[in-house]
Amino acid sequence: MGCKMNAAVSFLRRLSLFVLVSSLCSCPCRAEDSAMENIVTEKKAEESHRQDSADLLVFILLLTLTILTIWLFKHRRFRFLHETGLAMIYGLLVGVVLRYAIHVPSDMNNVTLSCNVNASPATLLVNVSGKFYEYTLKGQISANDVDDIQDNEMLRKVTFDPEVFFNILLPPIIFHAGYSLKQRHFFRNLGSILAYAFVGTVVSCFIIGLFMYGCVMLMKQIGHLGGDFFFTDCLFFGAIVSATDPVTVLAIFNELQVDADLYALLFGESVLNDAVAVVLSSSIVAYQPEGDNTHTFEAMAMLKSFGIFLGVFSGSFALGVATGVVTALISFNFTKLRDFPLLETALFFLMSWSTFLLAEACGFTGVVAVLFCGMTQAHYTFNNLSPESQDRTKQLFELLNFLAENFIFSYMGLTLFTFHNHVFNPIFIVGAFLAVFLGRAANIYPLSFLLNLGRRNKISSNFQHMMMFAGLRGAMTFALSIRDTATYARQMMFSTTLLVVFFTVWICGGGTTQMLSCQKIRSIGPDGVERRSTKHESAWFFRIWYNFDHNYLKPILTHSGPPLNATLPACCGPLARCLTSPQAYENEEQLKDSDSDLILNDGDITLSYGDVTVSTDAAGAHTSGTPVGGVAVNSDEAPDWSFPWMIRSPRCLWTPTGTGTRTKP
Amino acid sequence: MGCKMNAAVSFLRRLSLFVLVSSLCSCPCRAEDSAMENIVTEKKAEESHRQDSADLLVFILLLTLTILTIWLFKHRRFRFLHETGLAMIYGLLVGVVLRYAIHVPSDMNNVTLSCNVNASPATLLVNVSGKFYEYTLKGQISANDVDDIQDNEMLRKVTFDPEVFFNILLPPIIFHAGYSLKQRHFFRNLGSILAYAFVGTVVSCFIIGLFMYGCVMLMKQIGHLGGDFFFTDCLFFGAIVSATDPVTVLAIFNELQVDADLYALLFGESVLNDAVAVVLSSSIVAYQPEGDNTHTFEAMAMLKSFGIFLGVFSGSFALGVATGVVTALISFNFTKLRDFPLLETALFFLMSWSTFLLAEACGFTGVVAVLFCGMTQAHYTFNNLSPESQDRTKQLFELLNFLAENFIFSYMGLTLFTFHNHVFNPIFIVGAFLAVFLGRAANIYPLSFLLNLGRRNKISSNFQHMMMFAGLRGAMTFALSIRDTATYARQMMFSTTLLVVFFTVWICGGGTTQMLSCQKIRSIGPDGVERRSTKHESAWFFRIWYNFDHNYLKPILTHSGPPLNATLPACCGPLARCLTSPQAYENEEQLKDSDSDLILNDGDITLSYGDVTVSTDAAGAHTSGTPVGGVAVNSDEAPDWSFPWMIRSPRCLWTPTGTGTRTKP
Repeated sequence: MGCKMNAAVSFLRRLSLFVLVSSLCSCPCRAEDSAMENIVTEKKAEESHRQDSADLLVFILLLTLTILTIWLFKHRRFRFLHETGLAMIYGLLVGVVLRYAIHVPSDMNNVTLSCNVNASPATLLVNVSGKFYEYTLKGQISANDVDDIQDNEMLRKVTFDPEVFFNILLPPIIFHAGYSLKQRHFFRNLGSILAYAFVGTVVSCFIIGLFMYGCVMLMKQIGHLGGDFFFTDCLFFGAIVSATDPVTVLAIFNELQVDADLYALLFGESVLNDAVAVVLSSSIVAYQPEGDNTHTFEAMAMLKSFGIFLGVFSGSFALGVATGVVTALISFNFTKLRDFPLLETALFFLMSWSTFLLAEACGFTGVVAVLFCGMTQAHYTFNNLSPESQDRTKQLFELLNFLAENFIFSYMGLTLFTFHNHVFNPIFIVGAFLAVFLGRAANIYPLSFLLNLGRRNKISSNFQHMMMFAGLRGAMTFALSIRDTATYARQMMFSTTLLVVFFTVWICGGGTTQMLSCQKIRSIGPDGVERRSTKHESAWFFRIWYNFDHNYLKPILTHSGPPLNATLPACCGPLARCLTSPQAYENEEQLKDSDSDLILNDGDITLSYGDVTVSTDAAGAHTSGTPVGGVAVNSDEAPDWSFPWMIRSPRCLWTPTGTGTRTKP
Repeated sequence: MGCKMNAAVSFLRRLSLFVLVSSLCSCPCRAEDSAMENIVTEKKAEESHRQDSADLLVFILLLTLTILTIWLFKHRRFRFLHETGLAMIYGLLVGVVLRYAIHVPSDMNNVTLSCNVNASPATLLVNVSGKFYEYTLKGQISANDVDDIQDNEMLRKVTFDPEVFFNILLPPIIFHAGYSLKQRHFFRNLGSILAYAFVGTVVSCFIIGLFMYGCVMLMKQIGHLGGDFFFTDCLFFGAIVSATDPVTVLAIFNELQVDADLYALLFGESVLNDAVAVVLSSSIVAYQPEGDNTHTFEAMAMLKSFGIFLGVFSGSFALGVATGVVTALISFNFTKLRDFPLLETALFFLMSWSTFLLAEACGFTGVVAVLFCGMTQAHYTFNNLSPESQDRTKQLFELLNFLAENFIFSYMGLTLFTFHNHVFNPIFIVGAFLAVFLGRAANIYPLSFLLNLGRRNKISSNFQHMMMFAGLRGAMTFALSIRDTATYARQMMFSTTLLVVFFTVWICGGGTTQMLSCQKIRSIGPDGVERRSTKHESAWFFRIWYNFDHNYLKPILTHSGPPLNATLPACCGPLARCLTSPQAYENEEQLKDSDSDLILNDGDITLSYGDVTVSTDAAGAHTSGTPVGGVAVNSDEAPDWSFPWMIRSPRCLWTPTGTGTRTKP
């Protein structure tokens, strides 16, 4: 009887839309127990799958809504809210609905076992009256969560495994950042960018950590602290909120065509400091002094942490670059692969993905490896791809980046209401906002001062203010903070981080246009570019790198650049002939070189080698030389999404005329 | 002490490549038990993640290898082995290595619990001395598997959840099939294709089921059967091996430019019979007669199964078409979306994905919904997209299809060695091969005979032989058979299915070129096309559909087609004006219509309405008319991957000259 009803109900369910609850049949018919049990198990699995689909559908529809609204905003040229900010708002709304409007009766089948097990293995085999069921460990949950889990199945279901962010959503975002970093301005400002990203992030991390430790001490004094909060926790917080993500600001820069150097500084810094923050936070977690008290200072443990930082960072860097080089070599040697753009694109995608997996399998940081892989791919592999594949890879990663980014931000909004263990502490929150501000200031201003001592092209004070203002926190900060929310300290950090992200994305992101006009940072104009581009900073660094890259790496890894036997010493003749591609000889004359991402044209590099006074000669040689136009066209090939106006705009300046006027002052 | 060693070991591990075993520290230091426990849990999770990355990396490298080899094959024009066949071979090799060469010591921490639980909930909370751990149900495993699980962790790790195929890998493949189906030849042969797909698949399913039941009876007689095997199981087997997947054959057709009608028949049939097979197999599983014996024949239960078949199929169809129409309407109304190809592509992707999720959430079949969504998108939405988005969506789904397909085939090869419960029974295998052959023959030959009675353009006997030969089994058959391998019968089916797929892909796929020349099926030639294209089959069906589509659907859903007030009755004037896009009026004169996928040009449709004798007039009107050239260019817009030569080849025949000569006989 019970079984019959159950079958009928199941048939009806098949046609109904959102059946969320599965009530198990507990019919007492003994005879067909085994068969019934199987059916019941199947039905349960089906329900669960249906529920998962519905949950994912919520997110997909959220993203769809975001896209449609964003289109409206772009169409009407509203700049006060970026798509990521909008995604957060929609996420918030859905979170409110899920939390307060929908109440799902509890599934009573979440049996709490109290077995005498003294371990929590990754795989658990449960013997239910002779039948074995396999369970996989999802994670530890705090005791006060146990009730929640049984209380609201729906909220728990829309909660993703935090590792999803690190293993699925962040890699395409970071790869895309690396892949679109190929800009002459990035390499020009490499020294400053590295300083901001490495020194700046570490400084910011420690400043924030110290300040927060002060806050925590204060909270302890007045009895506002509900659990342990150690100095390492504070440092960890410092590390995770030091990862800036000015995607909102850069989108507006792009639209308004703001100064290219400022863009390069901000973009380069934010990309690299993500990598630094990831490794830094994992090194802080790895800090484990011996002895009874695990939270005291100990030189050995700290040295070990530092060693881990260096080891993991350089390992990830090496791995990323290595895979990039391998891909370049494959695309270089399999030149006929160019006839099959699909194969080429697939190979490119797979190799880039395998960088991530390889790094993770080796215990390095996949996200960091992927970043450097993307940069290497853009610099070498991209030049070996067929034009169609260049478009395809660009568009593919652009799409993946767009989807992943908006997904993360909408999930951020959602999780403010659906996360169960929020710890909002007013003192900690106010302290965190102050600390974030202080940390950013301690990063930008002193470093800019020091850098300006060495830079010919100074970072002006309005640029510094803009960089200060553009220190938004985004996907990386969120992913790092949600990764571990087991302890009280981590939960408080997570809640606070969410607020920091919301505030910076909405307020700082929304105020970018105002800030730009307030700081009188003009849109890029003919004069603006020319004035800046004669001055080259970190010339010695740039020169060494350029020489090595142009003379050896490019010829080996791409079909552009001079033949190797022109650059290698005579004794290496046979080796050089063997390594140089036949196309390089053809290219030699016409200098079909993608170095245009590094230099304006060939004379320009002499310009940066020599003194400012001899520049007129170089430029003079140019305007009469042939390749200038060709190079300008060639720069089209570089994946310069971030500077689309350089290619498309009629104000594009990388032309002989520009070269001529540039040398005047 | 133990802890110290453990930390050191962990640091070393971080630098080593494939650390597969995690040995848990069971140090007795009581004081820092809780902290240590956390560290241990973290370490375990880290190891597990590292292992997962390494496993996935194996597949990625496999795919990379496949791509490089395939490039070599394509370059050298080897046609005896398709990429999918090659992926299987590599998969097999890796499977052998994993199975026999690598022996991983067992992880002793898979504790087998013997709790007194009388249910197997989806979520299990385990109380380990005051701490709660959450476990999710992975599935039931047979008792003799328990030892295996503890025996070889590695093999179990490379085994994917079978639902991955249905929820992640199949949807893009099927969507791509639907999206690339937009061909005039498909609609021309719609009647025959539907007959093969529906009637043919059902016939084939029952023939195979009956034959296999005979085999099973025989096996029972001679005592070769090791478990239950019911008639429903046989029918289920019939349903899953009735899904053909001639991807290998079609690739060669494409390359050799074989007759377009034959291509359309094969492709259309294979796409639709996948959908039929999925729904059919789930209806067979749903067959549950009441009473004691659940495997007897019962009219009510069978009627219910039939009802489920109709309900699920039509529901999925309706859902797929509905989402497609919604996307078309969005892209139609948000015309300014065309300025942002990224947003457009993202929207297209998300809407197509949400079809799948919506169907699954409603209890329909996502794969079927996605197929019809793809067809609708290609027919309507595609025309509203900007040219850049058209390219992007095409390329995106082409890439996804390529990756998913090769992944499935390489996994197929791998699983032959890594799956633990293979049941290879010689009688069943031989029987299955015979049954597959018979089932295909019973589908093709009688149906072709019947269809030829009604078709003007007969399906010649060499075409029939070719269709018979091209009945390969592929991804869908595999995904259906791996979905449930719990019982003895299902395990035997799975093992046999694998062999059927291997055989058909390697032997039939590899012999396509030989078979084509043996059957004297020429490559498409000027005469070939013209001779065929004057004759239109299923004219009445085609005419009704074309009229409705061209006059009402296209104007409402796309910017092409005539204005609605030209086609709707006068009384609907205001409604028509409101629904017609302004562009439609502009287009009216020049007939900028993507109907070119249905008809050669406007006169051609009159040709198919009228009798053969009046055709000279229509053609005569054409050669003098303007739009012919325009239409030929327009057909470029359709996502006709499958007929690239129509666009690229100089032998392209959709030209006025062709139209002229066509009317001679």
